[in-house]
This record gives sequence, structure tokens and C-alpha cells, in this order.
Amino acid sequence: MTDFFKGIPKIAFEGRDTDNDFAFRHYDPDAVVMGKPMKDHLRFAAAYWHSFAWPGGDPFGGQTFERPWFADGMQAAKHKADVAFEMFQILGVPYFCFHDADVRPEGDSFAENTKNLAEIVDYFAEKMDATGVKLLWGTANLFSHRRFMAGAATNPDPDVFAFSAATIKTCMDATIKLGGENYVLWGGREGYETLLNTDMGRERQQAGRMLQMVVDYKHKTGFQGAILIEPKPQEPTKHQYDYDVATVYGFLKDFGLEGEVKVNIEQGHAILAGHTFEHELALARELGIFGSIDMNRNDYQSGWDTDQFPNNVPEMALAYYEVLRAGGFTTGGTNFDAKLRRQSLDPEDLILAHVGGMDACAAGLKAAAAMLTDGKLEAARDARYAGWDTPDAQALLKQATLDHCYDCVLRDDINPAPRSGQQERLENLVSRYL
Amino acid sequence: MTDFFKGIPKIAFEGRDTDNDFAFRHYDPDAVVMGKPMKDHLRFAAAYWHSFAWPGGDPFGGQTFERPWFADGMQAAKHKADVAFEMFQILGVPYFCFHDADVRPEGDSFAENTKNLAEIVDYFAEKMDATGVKLLWGTANLFSHRRFMAGAATNPDPDVFAFSAATIKTCMDATIKLGGENYVLWGGREGYETLLNTDMGRERQQAGRMLQMVVDYKHKTGFQGAILIEPKPQEPTKHQYDYDVATVYGFLKDFGLEGEVKVNIEQGHAILAGHTFEHELALARELGIFGSIDMNRNDYQSGWDTDQFPNNVPEMALAYYEVLRAGGFTTGGTNFDAKLRRQSLDPEDLILAHVGGMDACAAGLKAAAAMLTDGKLEAARDARYAGWDTPDAQALLKQATLDHCYDCVLRDDINPAPRSGQQERLENLVSRYL
Amino acid sequence: MTDFFKGIPKIAFEGRDTDNDFAFRHYDPDAVVMGKPMKDHLRFAAAYWHSFAWPGGDPFGGQTFERPWFADGMQAAKHKADVAFEMFQILGVPYFCFHDADVRPEGDSFAENTKNLAEIVDYFAEKMDATGVKLLWGTANLFSHRRFMAGAATNPDPDVFAFSAATIKTCMDATIKLGGENYVLWGGREGYETLLNTDMGRERQQAGRMLQMVVDYKHKTGFQGAILIEPKPQEPTKHQYDYDVATVYGFLKDFGLEGEVKVNIEQGHAILAGHTFEHELALARELGIFGSIDMNRNDYQSGWDTDQFPNNVPEMALAYYEVLRAGGFTTGGTNFDAKLRRQSLDPEDLILAHVGGMDACAAGLKAAAAMLTDGKLEAARDARYAGWDTPDAQALLKQATLDHCYDCVLRDDINPAPRSGQQERLENLVSRYL
Amino acid sequence: MTDFFKGIPKIAFEGRDTDNDFAFRHYDPDAVVMGKPMKDHLRFAAAYWHSFAWPGGDPFGGQTFERPWFADGMQAAKHKADVAFEMFQILGVPYFCFHDADVRPEGDSFAENTKNLAEIVDYFAEKMDATGVKLLWGTANLFSHRRFMAGAATNPDPDVFAFSAATIKTCMDATIKLGGENYVLWGGREGYETLLNTDMGRERQQAGRMLQMVVDYKHKTGFQGAILIEPKPQEPTKHQYDYDVATVYGFLKDFGLEGEVKVNIEQGHAILAGHTFEHELALARELGIFGSIDMNRNDYQSGWDTDQFPNNVPEMALAYYEVLRAGGFTTGGTNFDAKLRRQSLDPEDLILAHVGGMDACAAGLKAAAAMLTDGKLEAARDARYAGWDTPDAQALLKQATLDHCYDCVLRDDINPAPRSGQQERLENLVSRYL
Repeated sequence: MTDFFKGIPKIAFEGRDTDNDFAFRHYDPDAVVMGKPMKDHLRFAAAYWHSFAWPGGDPFGGQTFERPWFADGMQAAKHKADVAFEMFQILGVPYFCFHDADVRPEGDSFAENTKNLAEIVDYFAEKMDATGVKLLWGTANLFSHRRFMAGAATNPDPDVFAFSAATIKTCMDATIKLGGENYVLWGGREGYETLLNTDMGRERQQAGRMLQMVVDYKHKTGFQGAILIEPKPQEPTKHQYDYDVATVYGFLKDFGLEGEVKVNIEQGHAILAGHTFEHELALARELGIFGSIDMNRNDYQSGWDTDQFPNNVPEMALAYYEVLRAGGFTTGGTNFDAKLRRQSLDPEDLILAHVGGMDACAAGLKAAAAMLTDGKLEAARDARYAGWDTPDAQALLKQATLDHCYDCVLRDDINPAPRSGQQERLENLVSRYL
Repeated sequence: MTDFFKGIPKIAFEGRDTDNDFAFRHYDPDAVVMGKPMKDHLRFAAAYWHSFAWPGGDPFGGQTFERPWFADGMQAAKHKADVAFEMFQILGVPYFCFHDADVRPEGDSFAENTKNLAEIVDYFAEKMDATGVKLLWGTANLFSHRRFMAGAATNPDPDVFAFSAATIKTCMDATIKLGGENYVLWGGREGYETLLNTDMGRERQQAGRMLQMVVDYKHKTGFQGAILIEPKPQEPTKHQYDYDVATVYGFLKDFGLEGEVKVNIEQGHAILAGHTFEHELALARELGIFGSIDMNRNDYQSGWDTDQFPNNVPEMALAYYEVLRAGGFTTGGTNFDAKLRRQSLDPEDLILAHVGGMDACAAGLKAAAAMLTDGKLEAARDARYAGWDTPDAQALLKQATLDHCYDCVLRDDINPAPRSGQQERLENLVSRYL
Repeated sequence: MTDFFKGIPKIAFEGRDTDNDFAFRHYDPDAVVMGKPMKDHLRFAAAYWHSFAWPGGDPFGGQTFERPWFADGMQAAKHKADVAFEMFQILGVPYFCFHDADVRPEGDSFAENTKNLAEIVDYFAEKMDATGVKLLWGTANLFSHRRFMAGAATNPDPDVFAFSAATIKTCMDATIKLGGENYVLWGGREGYETLLNTDMGRERQQAGRMLQMVVDYKHKTGFQGAILIEPKPQEPTKHQYDYDVATVYGFLKDFGLEGEVKVNIEQGHAILAGHTFEHELALARELGIFGSIDMNRNDYQSGWDTDQFPNNVPEMALAYYEVLRAGGFTTGGTNFDAKLRRQSLDPEDLILAHVGGMDACAAGLKAAAAMLTDGKLEAARDARYAGWDTPDAQALLKQATLDHCYDCVLRDDINPAPRSGQQERLENLVSRYL
Repeated sequence: MTDFFKGIPKIAFEGRDTDNDFAFRHYDPDAVVMGKPMKDHLRFAAAYWHSFAWPGGDPFGGQTFERPWFADGMQAAKHKADVAFEMFQILGVPYFCFHDADVRPEGDSFAENTKNLAEIVDYFAEKMDATGVKLLWGTANLFSHRRFMAGAATNPDPDVFAFSAATIKTCMDATIKLGGENYVLWGGREGYETLLNTDMGRERQQAGRMLQMVVDYKHKTGFQGAILIEPKPQEPTKHQYDYDVATVYGFLKDFGLEGEVKVNIEQGHAILAGHTFEHELALARELGIFGSIDMNRNDYQSGWDTDQFPNNVPEMALAYYEVLRAGGFTTGGTNFDAKLRRQSLDPEDLILAHVGGMDACAAGLKAAAAMLTDGKLEAARDARYAGWDTPDAQALLKQATLDHCYDCVLRDDINPAPRSGQQERLENLVSRYL
């Protein structure tokens, strides 16, 4: 045991009225909701990068966190892993997620990176065995090192493409070895800063090819997890190719991969793209590509990715409602892609931030389940579209032509009167479950 | 002749140094640029709605314009047409564009709307014959009347779907009769306000079906023009289904219509979607769906569609550069989807706004042509990607696997050094042509 | 009795678990919170304009609401008043607010406007007597009519300034006659669209003069209510002179009116200015100019004023917390500057929207009161600044010079270590009261 | 001479048609514009931080630049200074600007920082003597080090306040010693992240006190330069106390310092606050607090401070127009608070970025001067407000009461007709000078 979290107990459920900061008020892992324990609905994962690799910098200031494992070398990496697994156990999260660059020392060459990754993966394997903590997903960081400054798959230099592909292989291997349930691709630098130096056609083809290679490798290795793309607009490149769910879908269709790849949707990224989180979730569901979620909270007024821990239960209820309507998670889960505010220096802050976030998710899930079970919302939705369920309307949708519609409208003097959309009534209804 | 524009001369080219407000400083219709007269590059169109149908209201105030044709009935509609064609001739724009609701009196029934439209179309036909002004595109207004408040194709009421389809037929017929070169669909209310009352799956199917019907009707009638969708985010519904070019592309692919339908891209809509205009143009070109443009200027800080007349030549040069790289317009053109500021009350303002906009377009086109002819920008772009032109790199792109890349990177100890993206140098280069 | 709300009962408190849409779940007017009935904390007011004068238009579509009182003339105005007071009673709101243009027919001259206003004010007076409903504030609409298109006080035409001043007098007189507790100025068009035609120096002086005249008239008439400015950025003019609380404060200081005028803060306007609602409330409190609030909810992603009914209790709790810290309302109150979504056509929607909003306010108030009573949040805040309470620190603040600080820091080798800001812990604490 | 810029010539003016990347096309330092050499209008300064201290990181990636002086210690600091002064001479900029942290090694204590600063200041003094380059302004970096994470003057810990004051003294001393013409305060962390842990009243008092101390020190030392506050919204703290010019003005008035302190206005900060650059410039002029400018370009769509080199001449012409209307710079100047894109790795990029920026400023200045000299714009503005120049209107502004206005409007049946604002005509007029 390290002494980083010394004095902090394992977090237990104590119920709504507890005064204990270090207890869950809503998250009761084994409590059954809609026939399934809460923990199996939520499938919480902690993110290695924000909690253990981020030094607290922002564009106007450097490191604020001083962590004993902030040092080069394998020993520090293992110390970091020790602390990380302690946090997973304190919180009782069943999963974690990582990038290669979060967990291994940065080497001077690809070979050294690969060797370092292998060593830390072995170390993780032991700790996972010992603790029962599992891997929700692994991924490669192809955006932080300066070699990726102009993209990974979409780099104008084919050597960077090759380096990226090789790195993905090592990260997929690590994911497979650790029994990961998904492999995620976030195209941090897959986009461009200025069209003046960019060949969008080439870059698009490069990105498509890389994705095909990933899918091929999945099949070759027999990996049973899902391949997930994480959409993001605006940042870090001004024009990201994976802007949002709809954009990713068009890209997948273009390369014939819509049956092979799903999406990992982040609240903050949805917001930055001008959508609500629930919009992105519902759209992915309708397009058949819903995979997993990165849960956090974005400041609506920031214009950049603030990755705050979530705490607005009314919003989360609407998000989990869409997850439940999608049938819940299969390989996916709720990963906290959330980081402490850079002034939250203490080990306690790291635990409490997760406790608050997990509780908010649990409260949101319970409200969503109550809404769905009650059925009033779905009944209202069905009633609104009931006109389309008649045989005539179905025929209209299947066989009609403009001419036919024209004839009908003229013949029957159709002049439809609008009906109330009842938005406020439905919003009141949602409030009832919160 | 009406007397609305009394005293305003036909606008002629007088060159950069003229002091005459009522003259072009850049737009010289017959001047040859890259082998083609400027007028055939730009293919200007004036928009009926903003210039002749909009009363000058905003969300906090009503009508500011007092136009002699602001009245009900066919006589006022013809007066409006008289003034409109006078403006087209004063400006020398070869094209115009319209919605049904801009040009005909609103009837109490579909039959009456249809009859009114037919009458005004006949009137237009005469005026077009007499003046030589042509129709760039027609479209149906399926968003202003309260019957469309919850959408047209995507309405929960199948009667509205039918009414919309019937209306589209009449507008396509009008477009065909007037020799229009395109038919445009802007899904003003094809989107939703709250997910609580929305069945996104149904609405998406409805929208796909409607589009298929439009394409079928094009083929049935032998219409040779292009069918164009105009993407727009955020407004008027919070969540528009045709958010941007990438979203529309995914939608077209989903319904197998990417070979049948192109896009009409508006500067202001691009901005609202978080993109630059040139991004949307370049993306449409790369996806093979570039059709036409709605030229205007959006206030970057507004959050809504301000539809101002364009005046920033550096921005327009970048836009026309992408148009030229796409091979220029075929059926498409430069439609001014721009309106006077509501305080610009005078007839002169309407003319001068177009003069300024046309001049800005012409200056942008000339700069774009100079850039392309000079070739320095394309040479720099090609040099940046030159590494991809080697046989090895091409093979990498076509046949590589993750394993193969892994082997190469390890074997050759590939460790790519980044090269400068030279953004500022390229921006300076662009400035040289302005 | 009109039959507009036929069948809708007076709304009563039924408690959290009621299934009745037409009941309060949180708002129990006479329930005592921190020593005062809830109704006296909240001081709810309904707004005449949104609920009774707005036709449901948006920039892309016209009227959706069809109200029996949508007609010209005094009879329609009285019908509207009848329905309005019925709504006030159904909801049990103690107050209402109005602009002159909401309540009287528009006349052809100032004299006619004045006469019409006087007649409807008499009608109101009777209804207020009969029902006990009171006036929270009156105001003049100096932005909708085309004569105000370039501003009221800040118009380039002195006749518009005079017309505006004369109108304000009639509206202050009406407010006084009806026992209004405040008089509000919202400078809808006090700003500019383009600096090219604007003399900011002149316009600023004009605005200052008008405000002085209002204050003088208050003193001349002995009006005991507060004069309130309502800050707003971005809309309807691009550059509003009353951008936010800080801007208004600077303006008041410049004209020496900071002791005479307070602010009416709207949630949506705070959001559009890039602030949180609670920021604006806290700042006004610290500057000594907190007056009243316009409660609504702005879509964070819209860029314009959406004026939705509030429903996010966590946000409202933070707002009422600042109101309570300011000592609560004196002359001010909670005015719903909120409107139905334009698809919410039915009379029931109007009632339910207010019910939901009032309940959300009440839930927010209860949570805020619990937070304040519990004291943990304030204890944490005090502890964070405790260092400043020492005599040395107080002396530092009062008498220090740069030289003195320099000497101390050198002498004592001061090298302060940062302490955690505990943001997540405090956010968890807030969640506990919700 | 270092060899960093080896092979790059001193930049000379070659005129509009040059093909030489390393030449000015517009900036001709000694060319006379409105009676003054261009260099004395523009008063260019290069910024030490972006060009020499910034490593090229962004929130998703680390250092991209590899500079020979990126090392600890005084020797590296002097190497950096050598290169910096070489750049100043290559460009021919008459001024530079710096923060303490840009130029000296970071020490372990205040004493060490002070000693380091003194040593580098001596080194600067020699180089300034040798080259004739002057100091436009100095400033203290009170936001990057973790000790300032919760603010400098507004920190909850009085020791940080003292440390900040002491640091400001050393930076003012350095500025004075080097003959700086201004001293700037940018309150990077003077604001807050969450209101939950913030005492806005205390922090405001602390900020006011610090500013008073700075002013007192100016008077004590006899410093003849201007004290300038640089407003900024949104970043790095969510709620910055110096949001924009209007906010700073209110703050200055509150503490009675509006006669002592002016503003340094940055284009990017204006944009982030929802204003145009020219709005902020004009407002500062009207309030009597215009001081200096930080010239750059912000991406309108980013939501954060992108600090790009400026290149949009139409926008810059409008900015310099307001500078000229303010009488031009006195102690202020044009500081490039602009940084290379992080992919622009080469020494050449650094030079070319400045060349492009300086040329864009020069082109903007020339256009602005032509506009002002021509006088058409001012004539149109005067004509618009001419009604206010009559004795009656002036009396109205000085002595009127609401009653008096009411009497006049009634008596004369005043019913003002709006006149066109002519925005597009004026925009066309501006285009003529570009």
C-alpha cells in the first residue's frame, strides 16, 4: 500500500441522508434497478490520464499538482499504478481505461515505448488479478508527442502514419492481453489548423485506411471487444474530422465500416459540437452505432473541453434515459473522462470528485429508470406520432409519390391544423422523477 | 416601370478608383478571368425573399420597411414582381431565386396556393422572356406557416407530410416551367426542439422518404437541374437534421442518394455550425456533392443567422478559391441570401447593398484566380504531402496492415521528425493576391 | 369569466408525490422558510408580454398562437386583461408586470397611446382591487415600434428622445397609479448595429441624461419604488450599452446615479453575457445595486434569448442562494420573463409552464435556504479567507505599499504554498441539499 | 551574433509588388501618413513571451519548438536575449515588451527571482543601448506559477498578495530602469472558478488596494509612463474581474482611479468578450482611458485566446481608424501579443509571421488614414446626428424633464419618422479605401 490516500476509507453506500463526505448517497452497487444491479447498468470506469498523468496545467500556468509519481522511469510508473489501483478499490469502480502514454515511461524510440508498455501491462495484469478491477478500454495517445503535431493517420508524412499504426497495434495487443472490452480511437490531431496547407482528400483516405487496418486487426486477432471512435469538434485542431456522431456516421458509411465500428460519446464533446449529450446518444442509437460514454460536464460557456466531474442530475437523467432506451450498455460503460479543477490539490479531492460524479450518475440512472418504467413519457411520444401508425400513413411512407400526395391533398382539401407540442408539460413530467 | 427605384441608374463597371456609389469597382461582367467571363464564374442570383418579402422585423420589433407592395392579393404580388425584375436589371444579375411563399399570395387552401403560384409563374415567365433574367433555383417554403411549426417531412402528422409533398411538387413544376437550373430543399423545421416529444428514428425515415420522392419526381419529369440540400445548424429548430455538409453526406449515404443530391452551402450556416465557409466548400468538393452557394456574411459573434451582405474580401477569396478548385459552378451559382439591415430603409440601400456584395465577390474571385494561376499555394501543398507519392507510401496506403507497419517501424527504427506547417508564410502568400 | 381557461382549476399545493399535473409539488405559498412564508420570499410575478401579447413568431415563421384577444382595439385589450387576471388567480401569483405596448392598443399618435393607456390602467385598477393582484413593475416598450429602430434615448433624432421621455412619463404615471413597487428600464435598442454610423459619445450622454430625468421624476412624484435597469448583451442590437451588471455599474458611476438606480437581472441575459446568473446576482449585491430578477432559462447553446420557463433546480438553488445572501427581495421579486415554446398552443400549456417554473423556483429556494441555514458552505468560505482576518493582514490591506510588501517578503522569505480550492467537495456539498 | 536566424536578412520595404517573402509590402517606416512617419503611428513592439518563452504546447500536447535557449539558468536567459534582440533588429521594431518570468530564470525564492531579474535587466540595458531598441512596457507574470493558481491580488492568502506586490515593485523598477513607456497589469488569475469558494467582495477590495499601491508607487518613483490594465474575459479563470473595457471602467470609478489608469486593449480579448476590437477602442476613447493595444487575431469560433498574427486588413483598418480618432498613441503602441502556430517550427516562421503582421497593420493604418482624411465617413456620421446640434435639442439634453418632453410631444404631436441607417452604403464606402 502506498500512503497517498492514507486515512481515506473505502467508499460505501450510506443513503441520501448521510453527512459523511466519504460515502455514496445514491450509488448502491447491488441495488436492483429495472431488473439489474446498478453497477451493471452503470459499469463505471476511472480514467488513468486525468487522475494520474495530468499535472494541472492550463494555457496560462504550469503544474499545480505535486504527485510522488511525477518522475521519469519505470519505478515511478509502477508507483503511479499502485496508487491508481488503490483509488479504483476505494471507489469500487469495476473498470479503468488508459492510453499508452499515461501508463508507461516515454521512450526514445518505438522499440523502447513498446518494451515499456509491455512491462507495465504485465504489472497491470497482476494488479487486475489481485483486485478484480477490469479494463473497459485501452487506446493509443497519438496526439501529445510532437511527432503527431500534424496528425497521426492524417499526417502529411507517411512515416508518422506507419508509426501510428505500429503504436495502435501495441495498444490493441495490450488491450487484448488485459481482457479489455473495447478499443477506442480518439483522433486528437486528425483534423487541420489551416486549409491552406491541407489536402483534405488525401487525409480522409488516410484516415479511412487506418480504420480499416484496425478493423482487420480486430478480426485477425479475434478480439471480441468493440472498436469505438470518439467524436470531438473544435479541439485540439480547429477542424476535427470526427466532429460529432453524424459526421462519424458519414465517414463510416463512406468506408463501409458502419457495421464494424461504434461510437464512444462524451458529454463535453457533444456540447462543444452544439448538441446536447442526449441528442448524440439518441442519434447513435437510431443509427445503430451506440457504444459507450465518456461522462463528464462541460462548462457551456467555455468554448473548450473543461472535463469537469458531472453534478447536474436533471441533465444526467436525460442522458441515461437514452442509454436505457438503447437497451443499456453491452461492451460499453460509464468512463469518467473528468479531471479535478487544477486548484483541487489534495488526494481527498480526487476521491470526492469521483464520489460526487458516481452519485450523480446513480441519481440520474434511478430517475431515468423511473421515467421509463412509469411509461408516461413514451405514451405521450407514441400519441404524438399515432397518425403515422394507420395503414394509410404507412402506405404514404412506403409507396407515395409527389404526384400521389398532390392528388390526395387537392382531392381531400387537406389543411392540417397544428397540435400542441406540450414541451413544458413534458418537462414538468420529467421533473417529477428527479 | 414602377417608380420604386426612380433615379437609380443601371449599375456599370467603372473601375477601382470611381467615386460613384452606383458603379461597380471590381465586377466587370465580361472581363475574362482564367478563360471565362467573370459573370460566368460568379453566376449571380438575387434572392426574392430577403429583398422583397421581408418586412424588417426582428425578435424585438416589427416591420420597419414600408414597401408599396406590402399588401395581400395578386395585384400586390405582381407589383412586387415588377420591382424585383427592375432590381435584377439595374444590377445586371443574370439569375434570381424564390420560394413559393415569397411570390404568391397566401391562400386559404392548397388549391388556392397552387392557383396563385401558377398565375405568378406565368407572370414571371413573361418578365423573364422580356428581360433575359433566368431562374437559378426555386424552392418551397415549408417552415413559415404555422402548419409547419413541427416540421414538414418530419412532422408527427402525416397530413403535413402529404401537404409538404404536394407543395414541393408545385414548386418543382414551377421551377421546371421557368427553366430553373436547380431545385433546393432547406429543411427549416426538419429538426426538433425537445427530444422529449421527438421520435428521431421515425422523423429520419420520413425525411429520407421525402427526399427519395423528390429524386423520383426529378427523374419522372426529366428535370435536368440539380437537387440541392441546404445544410443549416441550430436555427430555427434547436437540433436541425441537416446540420452541416458532413451530416448531410451521412444522411444521403444512409438513403443511397449521394449520387442524386448535392449541397447548397451558405456562408452563414457554415459559421453557425462551427466551420469556415471554405471548409464546407472543400469538404463538399471532396465528397463529390458540391452544388451551389448562398453568399452572405454572418456576424461571428451573433449565434444566429444574420444574413448580412458580404464585404470581407480576404474571406471571400478563400471561398472562391475552393469553388475554383472544385472546377467552378456547373448548375450552381452565387445567390445572395443576404438582407438589408432593418434600419436600411431606402430603395437606394437595397441597390447599394447588392453592389457592394457583388463587388466583394468579384474582388474575391479575382484574388482566388490569381492564387490558383500563380500556383505557389498548390506547390506548397503538394510539397508537404510529397512523401505520400512514393511507391512505398502508396503501397502503405493500399495494402498495409498494423502488423506490417509494426515490423517496418521496429526494423527501420522509424522516429519521424516533424516539419514546419508554415501557416503564417502561407497566410502572407495569400495576402499578396488581395 | 372568459372561457379561455375553462376546466382548469386553481392550482394548489399537493406535495411532492402528487400525480396531478395541475398542482404544485414544491410551492406551498404559506409554508415558512427561514422565518418567512415562501410567497414572501419568492414574490412571483407573471409577465404580460410573453403570455398574452406574443403571437408565437420566430425569425423563420409567423404567428402560431390563436388567441381570441388577438385583435385591434380597446375591447380586445380588455378581453386580454380579463384572461390575464384569470391566469394570475389560477396560479396564485401575487404580482404581474407589463409594458405599455402589451396592454393598450397601439394608437396613431402619442396622444392616442396616452389615452388608451389611461383607459386600460383604470380597467386594471378595478381588477387589481377585485383580485388583490399587485403590480411588481411597469415599464415602457421603447424598442418594438419602428420609430425606435435606432434607439430611444440614444436615437440620433432628438424627437425620438423626446417621444421616449414622454412615453416613460406616462408609464411611470401608470405604475404609480397602480401602486407598482418598481419601475424598470430595459434599453432594448440602446446600443448600436455598426460603429460606422454611431457616435458613441453622444449616445452615452443621451442615455445618461434620460436616466437622470427618470430619477428626477421619481423624486418629483414621490414614487417610493425602485428604478431598475435591466442589463442585456448582444440582442437586439449587436452592441448593447447595458451589457451586464458590471457595465451598468460603470455607467451609473459615470453619471453619479449608483445610489439611485438598481438592476433587474435576467437569467438569460446573464448567460448571453458569458456569466452565470449567480455571478450577476452576487456582483450586484457586492456593488449594492441588487434589485429584482427576471427568471427564465436560456438555452446555453443558442446565442439568443430563448426565454424558456426554468426547470433546472440545481441552477436555481445557486441563484436563490445569492438572493438570500443579499438579504432577499425588498421591492423586487421573481418575474417570469419566460414564454411558451411556439408549439405549445393550448391554454393548458400556459398554466403548466408557470406551474413548472414556480415549482422549480420553490425547490431552488428551499435548497438555498437549507444550505444557508446549515452553514457549511459559508464556514468553508470563511475558512478559505481566514488569513485575511488577522490584524497584520488587515493592516496590509489598509496601509501597505509596494515597498513595504517587498521588504516583508524579502525579510521573511515569504514563499506561499497553495492550498486546495476544494471545488468538487463544495459541489458535492451543494448536491446534498437538492 | 547567434546563428538562430542565420541567412535571414534585415527586412526592408520593397513595395506591394515584391515577390520577396522577406520584405515589407506595406510597412515603410519613414513614409509619412497624416503628417507623421508610419513608424511613429504604429510604434511596433515585439512580445518576449510568445516568441521566445513559449514552447508550443496546447492542452493536448507538449512542446513542439526546440530552441537552443530552452534550458535553465542565466546563460540560457542571455542566449535568449541575444536572439530576441537579433529579431528586433531584423524586423526593425522600435520596441519590445516583457514579463519578468519571460526573461529571467525562475528562482527558488523571491530573493533569487529579484537577483536574476536585476542581472538580466542590466544585460538588456546594454543591448538596448547598443541597438536603440526601446521598452514599450514591462509587466509581472502573476499567473503561471502555482503559487498564483488562486489569484495574485485577489488570492485568499494574504502572503500571495504580499508576494505579488513585491514582485510588481521589482518589475516596475525594471521598467523604470529600462526607460519603459508604460507599465501593464494583466490580471490573469484575478477572477474565480467557482462562486462556491469565492468571496467576491473581499477579492474586489484586494484588487482595488493593489491597484492603488501601484499608482502610489508610480507617483513615489516619478515614473512618467502610463499604468495600463489589460481587460480579458473567460480565461484563464472562468470569471475574470477585468472582463472588458466597460467593466474596468466601473472598477476604476469605484476606486477613484479613472484618472490614473488606462487600458491596454487586445483584439483577441475584445472578441472573447463578445465585442469587436473597434468597439473596445472607441469605448475606451469615449471614457478617456485609451492607452495601448495588443495586436493579434482571435479565431472567432474558438472560445479561447488563439493569439494569431493578424492578417485581415479590413478589420485592422477599422481598428486603426479608432486609434486615429483617439489622436493616435501617446505612450502606447502596437504590441504583437501573437504567437506562431505550434506547427510553425522554423526560425523563418517567426520572422515571416511578424513581417505579415506588420504589413497588415501598415495596410490597415494607411486605409484608416485615407478614410479619415477623405472625411466622407465622418460627414455621414455628423449628418446623422445633426438634429442634436440645434439649440432646442441641446437644451433638451441639458435641462429637460419628463414633464417637459411630455408637454412638447403632446403639443406638437411629435411622431418621428425613422431615417435609413445606411449601413451597407457606409460599408461600401469603407471598402473603397482598402
